[in-house]
Amino acid sequence: MHTPHVLAFDIFGTVVDWHGSVQREVQALYPAVDAGAFALAWRAGYQPAMARVRSGELGWTRIDALHRLILDGLLPRFGLDHLGETERQHLNRVWHRLDPWPDTVQGLTRLKTRFTLCTLSNGNIGLLTNMAKRAGLPWDCILSAEVFRAYKPDPRTYLGVAQTFDVAPADVMLVAAHQDDLAAARACGLATAYIERPFEFGAAQPKDVSPDPANTLHARDLLHLADLLGC
Amino acid sequence: MHTPHVLAFDIFGTVVDWHGSVQREVQALYPAVDAGAFALAWRAGYQPAMARVRSGELGWTRIDALHRLILDGLLPRFGLDHLGETERQHLNRVWHRLDPWPDTVQGLTRLKTRFTLCTLSNGNIGLLTNMAKRAGLPWDCILSAEVFRAYKPDPRTYLGVAQTFDVAPADVMLVAAHQDDLAAARACGLATAYIERPFEFGAAQPKDVSPDPANTLHARDLLHLADLLGC
Repeated sequence: MHTPHVLAFDIFGTVVDWHGSVQREVQALYPAVDAGAFALAWRAGYQPAMARVRSGELGWTRIDALHRLILDGLLPRFGLDHLGETERQHLNRVWHRLDPWPDTVQGLTRLKTRFTLCTLSNGNIGLLTNMAKRAGLPWDCILSAEVFRAYKPDPRTYLGVAQTFDVAPADVMLVAAHQDDLAAARACGLATAYIERPFEFGAAQPKDVSPDPANTLHARDLLHLADLLGC
Repeated sequence: MHTPHVLAFDIFGTVVDWHGSVQREVQALYPAVDAGAFALAWRAGYQPAMARVRSGELGWTRIDALHRLILDGLLPRFGLDHLGETERQHLNRVWHRLDPWPDTVQGLTRLKTRFTLCTLSNGNIGLLTNMAKRAGLPWDCILSAEVFRAYKPDPRTYLGVAQTFDVAPADVMLVAAHQDDLAAARACGLATAYIERPFEFGAAQPKDVSPDPANTLHARDLLHLADLLGC
C-alpha cells in the first residue's frame, strides 16, 4: 500500500455521534418530545437542504444556516413551534456540541504522530472548530466545504485537500463511515478508509457496515485504523 | 476592557522568527552566502509580490508561489543561480520550517485555555499547517488569506475571522508585531494587541517597538500577553 501523507476525516457519524448527541440534548431540554425521531428528522433534512444550494435555488450557505432552516421547519411537527429565537439559536448550536465516539480522541492522537490530520466536512469552519475545542479533537488543520465553496461530494472538495497540501490525490486518504463519500473521493484518485459506525442512526436501527473491496482500508474504529496504518 | 472570544495571530515575525530561521538554513546550506542579507532580501520581495496580485497583474496566488517567484529573482544576486529545481523547491519550503520565538509555544498553550486561537496570515494553509505541526503550535483553527482569497490588510480578512466564528468584530483580537496590520484590523472594529519583536529583522537591526496607545494591549511577548489576559 502507498502510504498517504494526509488523512482527511469526514466528521458527522465518522468522528462524532450526531444521533446520540442530538437525542441526549433534545431529551434533556424537551422531555415530551421523541428525541430519537427528532434527531433523525433533522439529519434527514440535510441532503435536501444542500441540494437547494447546489441547484442554485439558494446562494452559498453555511451548514449552521441550513441546520436552522431545517430546524424551523421541523419544530411544529414536534409540538415545539412556541420556541423563541434564543432557544432556537441555542438548540441549533447542538451541532457544535456533538460528542466523539469513545475511540475517537485516542485514535486521532495516535494517527497524528505519523500523518497530517484534517477535517473534510460539509460543516462550516466555526462549527468544526468549536466542536474540536470542546471534544479535544487534535486536528492539524480544519478544512471544510466552506473553504472550497462546494459541498462534498463535489470533486473540488477532495481535490482541494490535495491542492492545499501540494500533494498528489493518492497522498490523501479520506476516512469516512459512508460509502458514497468514499466512492466520490476514490473517483478523484484519493485513497479511502471505511470506518464501521453501526449505530450512527441509533441503537434501534443498526446500519449495514459490510466492507467494499474498492476501499484501501476497512476498520472497525479509529484505533483499528491506527493499527492498520502502523501508528 | 471587553474580553474577546477569538485571538487571531499574525505569524511571520509575531509567532515565528523568519529572519533567524531563514538565515540559519541558508548559512548551513550555502556557507559562502551572506545569509542575513539573503533573508532580508527575500522578505523585502514579499509586499511587492502581493501588490502584483492586488493590482490584478497576477491572478490569485499562494504565498508558496510568491516566495518561489522572489527566490528565483534573488539567486543570481547571491551567486546561487546554479541551483537546480530540487534545491530551489527545498529552499523555498524553509518558510514551512520557521522556528517559533522562545515564548511562543508556552504562551499559546496558556492562551488556548481561555480563547479560541487561530492564525490570520497571508501564508497559505499548507504552509501554516506544516509549520504548526513541526513547531508544535497549538492552533484551534488555521485561517489564512487563502480562505478569504484576499491578503491582509484587506478588510475581508479581518472581518472574515469574525464571520467565520459568527461573532462581532470587537470579539476578535488581532495579535501582531506590526502596527500597520493592527491599524487595519482596528479600522474594521477588531481589538488589537501589539507584541514587541525587537529583533524581527535580526540582532544587527533592532526595530522600533514603542507603544501605540490606539492598541487595546501592548505586550513584550506572548507570555506577557497571557498575563495581561488573565491566563
